Amino acid sequence: MQNKRYTKKPVRNASHRGADKPVNTNNNPSSNAQSVPASKSQNLRIIPLGGLGEFGKNMMLLEYQNQILIIDAGFRMPDEDMPGIDYLISNTSYLKGKEKNIVGAIITHGHYDHFGAIPYTWPRIGNPRTFAGKLAASIIMKRQEEFPDHPKLDITQIGHGSKIKLGVFKIEFFRQNHSTPDNFGLFIETPVGNILHTSDFKFDAAPVNDKPTDFNFLEQLAKRGILLMMCDSTGSESEGHSLSEKTIYESLEKIFQEASGRIISSTFASHLNRIQQLISLAEKYNRKVAIAGRSLETNLEIARNLKYLTMKKGTLVKARDISKYPDNQVSFICTGAQGEERATFMRIATGEYRHFNLKRGDSIVFSSSVIPGNERSVQVLKDGFYRQGAKVYHYQMMDIHTSGHAYQEEISKMTKIMKPKFLLPLHGQYSMLVKTAELAREAGVSPNNIKVIENGQVLNINANRTLIEEKTVPVNYIMVDGLGVGDVGEVVLRDRQNLSQDGMFVIVAVIDRQAGKVKGSPDIISRGFVYLRESQELLRETRKRVIGIINKSSKENTLNPTYIKDELRNKIGDFLFSKTKRRPIILPVIIEV
Amino acid sequence: MQNKRYTKKPVRNASHRGADKPVNTNNNPSSNAQSVPASKSQNLRIIPLGGLGEFGKNMMLLEYQNQILIIDAGFRMPDEDMPGIDYLISNTSYLKGKEKNIVGAIITHGHYDHFGAIPYTWPRIGNPRTFAGKLAASIIMKRQEEFPDHPKLDITQIGHGSKIKLGVFKIEFFRQNHSTPDNFGLFIETPVGNILHTSDFKFDAAPVNDKPTDFNFLEQLAKRGILLMMCDSTGSESEGHSLSEKTIYESLEKIFQEASGRIISSTFASHLNRIQQLISLAEKYNRKVAIAGRSLETNLEIARNLKYLTMKKGTLVKARDISKYPDNQVSFICTGAQGEERATFMRIATGEYRHFNLKRGDSIVFSSSVIPGNERSVQVLKDGFYRQGAKVYHYQMMDIHTSGHAYQEEISKMTKIMKPKFLLPLHGQYSMLVKTAELAREAGVSPNNIKVIENGQVLNINANRTLIEEKTVPVNYIMVDGLGVGDVGEVVLRDRQNLSQDGMFVIVAVIDRQAGKVKGSPDIISRGFVYLRESQELLRETRKRVIGIINKSSKENTLNPTYIKDELRNKIGDFLFSKTKRRPIILPVIIEV
Repeated sequence: MQNKRYTKKPVRNASHRGADKPVNTNNNPSSNAQSVPASKSQNLRIIPLGGLGEFGKNMMLLEYQNQILIIDAGFRMPDEDMPGIDYLISNTSYLKGKEKNIVGAIITHGHYDHFGAIPYTWPRIGNPRTFAGKLAASIIMKRQEEFPDHPKLDITQIGHGSKIKLGVFKIEFFRQNHSTPDNFGLFIETPVGNILHTSDFKFDAAPVNDKPTDFNFLEQLAKRGILLMMCDSTGSESEGHSLSEKTIYESLEKIFQEASGRIISSTFASHLNRIQQLISLAEKYNRKVAIAGRSLETNLEIARNLKYLTMKKGTLVKARDISKYPDNQVSFICTGAQGEERATFMRIATGEYRHFNLKRGDSIVFSSSVIPGNERSVQVLKDGFYRQGAKVYHYQMMDIHTSGHAYQEEISKMTKIMKPKFLLPLHGQYSMLVKTAELAREAGVSPNNIKVIENGQVLNINANRTLIEEKTVPVNYIMVDGLGVGDVGEVVLRDRQNLSQDGMFVIVAVIDRQAGKVKGSPDIISRGFVYLRESQELLRETRKRVIGIINKSSKENTLNPTYIKDELRNKIGDFLFSKTKRRPIILPVIIEV
Repeated sequence: MQNKRYTKKPVRNASHRGADKPVNTNNNPSSNAQSVPASKSQNLRIIPLGGLGEFGKNMMLLEYQNQILIIDAGFRMPDEDMPGIDYLISNTSYLKGKEKNIVGAIITHGHYDHFGAIPYTWPRIGNPRTFAGKLAASIIMKRQEEFPDHPKLDITQIGHGSKIKLGVFKIEFFRQNHSTPDNFGLFIETPVGNILHTSDFKFDAAPVNDKPTDFNFLEQLAKRGILLMMCDSTGSESEGHSLSEKTIYESLEKIFQEASGRIISSTFASHLNRIQQLISLAEKYNRKVAIAGRSLETNLEIARNLKYLTMKKGTLVKARDISKYPDNQVSFICTGAQGEERATFMRIATGEYRHFNLKRGDSIVFSSSVIPGNERSVQVLKDGFYRQGAKVYHYQMMDIHTSGHAYQEEISKMTKIMKPKFLLPLHGQYSMLVKTAELAREAGVSPNNIKVIENGQVLNINANRTLIEEKTVPVNYIMVDGLGVGDVGEVVLRDRQNLSQDGMFVIVAVIDRQAGKVKGSPDIISRGFVYLRESQELLRETRKRVIGIINKSSKENTLNPTYIKDELRNKIGDFLFSKTKRRPIILPVIIEV
């Protein structure tokens, strides 16, 4: 398909940046390893800080002597039991005090699970110089505008074929098919041998906006000898081979051929290749394109400016102008296919979108998979569209979405091409890492040479090229909430969870110190517990008990606010539980006058 | 398989209960309808209160003149954005003032989505007499023990072939295969024609603890003419035919044949047929059975007592005694396959179960599907088991679970057998109702005679046997939280959501009325916002501003607590947002002394 815009010439402006002399390409992977004495400090340490045993927040360190290379720095979305949290990022306390050792950071591609932690992490680790493809670099810079106070990023663009030297690490970039253009695998020469990092990848014989996988090129890399392959595991539980984007295009085209009304599609804002397909099809079938969703608009603009995405002049129209065109000349693209509450797709599903309402005959296209955990909200979307009489197409009905990640056949094939001595599964839940290990075994890697480890577990390759598991480094996640990075901890989170279960109940009592008695009627403030207006009887009884508890305890003792507060917490807590079977957080305030 | 315990003789103790004379079985469905004048009051109204457009809380009313028949009264689990809520039940305000019109209630089978609302709803609608199979009746009575203050339920047992007359409704019960024994479809003669209610159902040629589907019997019912079929839609989005339980048994048997260590299985506590399979296999392969999980223990006990489930003497051992047996003689069954946090399965996955720890070589069996929305917590389980080196079997890898609900072929077949004039899809998300309607069209029902409606939309069949959509009745759900039924409304829920996002911030200021000034330092109590110990600077600055705001406003005006509170909410809210980008709920308390 439309590959004309692919930058055929590799971007070379970063070649051998930081190298004192030309890289001496080492065709024998064992030669330099054998020349190094086997002291511990001359081991290569592989330190995964994120992405192993989870989806997202990918971050890997390679450390040799005093030199540290960072590969990726992503974030991930919080778990369901982390209310109010925006993102999770990797704990980088291992790098504390070692900022000067960081020789550089590589971002493999422009997806948030690979670069999203930069604004939160870079200021803490000395703002390391960063290397990324043209598209990723632009997306990172655009995002950084949201953090005007941060030091300027030092980003250098790389491309397919670029070679850079960062300390002892000699890195060559090679393109890998994925759901976005400009995604790069890494071939890294280290003093102990060559490392191949797949980045996220799939094999595609007919991709969109990209060249087909160049197996010849991969085999050339393999010939130089791979000591360790670090392999994307996201798709390892899917059998067979991922679909080619060409298949997706053909399925989508059927919808465009048949649709008599408007076509409203939703996909991931990061899936630039799918967006290109939807735009190309709209142009082919004489439809205008309107888009909605800030992340989508930003990505589209960046990709158009860099010519990673093409759209004819006049194709794009404003969402608010959609009604000016006949239905069969409208194609609408938005985000929100995961059922996000405030996204355009949900507003269309519930009939609350301001620019148009659905009509019978409109077609809805879910060109995306369902991220685990979102099934229920996606069902809400689907039901909303059906209620309004739209035709609904989703990936379980037609091949209108495929993964950007290698399935089992592709992982096997990559392993067989690279023939690594060691294999380390990356990127994915633990069960996926286990499955990648199994595939690697079947593909011929010795079982002892495959390590299923998780974040913080350190591997150590010594000069004899043996793999040792080392003690761990800290890797608990860091929660980002608004401006706070790491200030929300377990205590705050537990309070949020408890508050959300049964609400809270503040008791404010003024005590006359001299009389040792409650003055007036205690104030009660409660939220999320019961509907107060309909619980007057309960409140009256509670106030009576508060007064009783305080007066009794101040009669028996000298006025002891700590004791009184404990009494109130326990006794009022029990009383409310007996009446409601709920346990709000009780917060007593005692004011002495 | 082991069907010996199935009660072959229909339970007859309820036949024609309430009938003054024997039911005159009407072989011509149109005869009595045509003899009735077509006045509105002689229409049959079909009033779905729950289960149409959702999973769970199934509840249907049939109303003819002043007589109301209730079919099922289930609950469903709350949505993700309803923290603290235990269950959702149907709004039965339509029945208010009509309690005496209720001729009876039928519970089709002993699953919570069909009977779970009884304790909350029955006291409000006059504790109607209730009809259920032996197993369902026992489960309902057992549950009722948790509500000792409630009036005693009036339950009559029915069985396959039972006939009862409740007012104008003549009901015949026929067994339907499902995931529990003792599940009954309903053939209901009404003055306007015959209604067939499928209950939850599947067709199974080789079920467990049950007879195969008796198509001959279904055809005999069909011959009497079906005016309206109400059809289970839960499985309508699954292609083909659901697997037979025999297939599941064979797959499970492979695991038992191969396992050298312990076998730890999890399934739904309500899936009595699957539990029987796991017990039978354990006995066949010489393993003891230990079970864990209160709902599982209760169901097992009831089903054993009623002989709906067989287990040899000596098979059952205590969970705490498991270590006394060789690994290959242990089979453990528990609940929690949805990743519920406190269930045994999760504790085994995280290594926190008190009675044993997993070993390499143990086999884990997920004999259950994943309920939409639980995918993420199920992944946590799987990863936990893999981490401990267990073999994990789940239904995507092997046929070790199938649905208890009809798939597309079965829905089509049922429709073709019954040849109803009208069809109403029941039980399922809106998209599933739509799919059932499509299947019914393909099976020959006239498109105009298929109604996809949702809870509260009323259908009206008049004496001319035409179907009219009527105005709706109220059907917003009712939230059950602890002892409260319906006392948590949108306000309380919104507060819980807000509290969970950014927590709360109480400001207590004592004002000296005469001086018009703050006395001492304001108290601040906050939960779920920031970690207070590390935010001393923020608190200091906040207190200073609180004093400033109060002193300023009391200097400008006479002391106005409402105004001061508004000022504090707005200004302190903005200040905290500027510092943290979080918006805790601000609760000012002003005390004048």
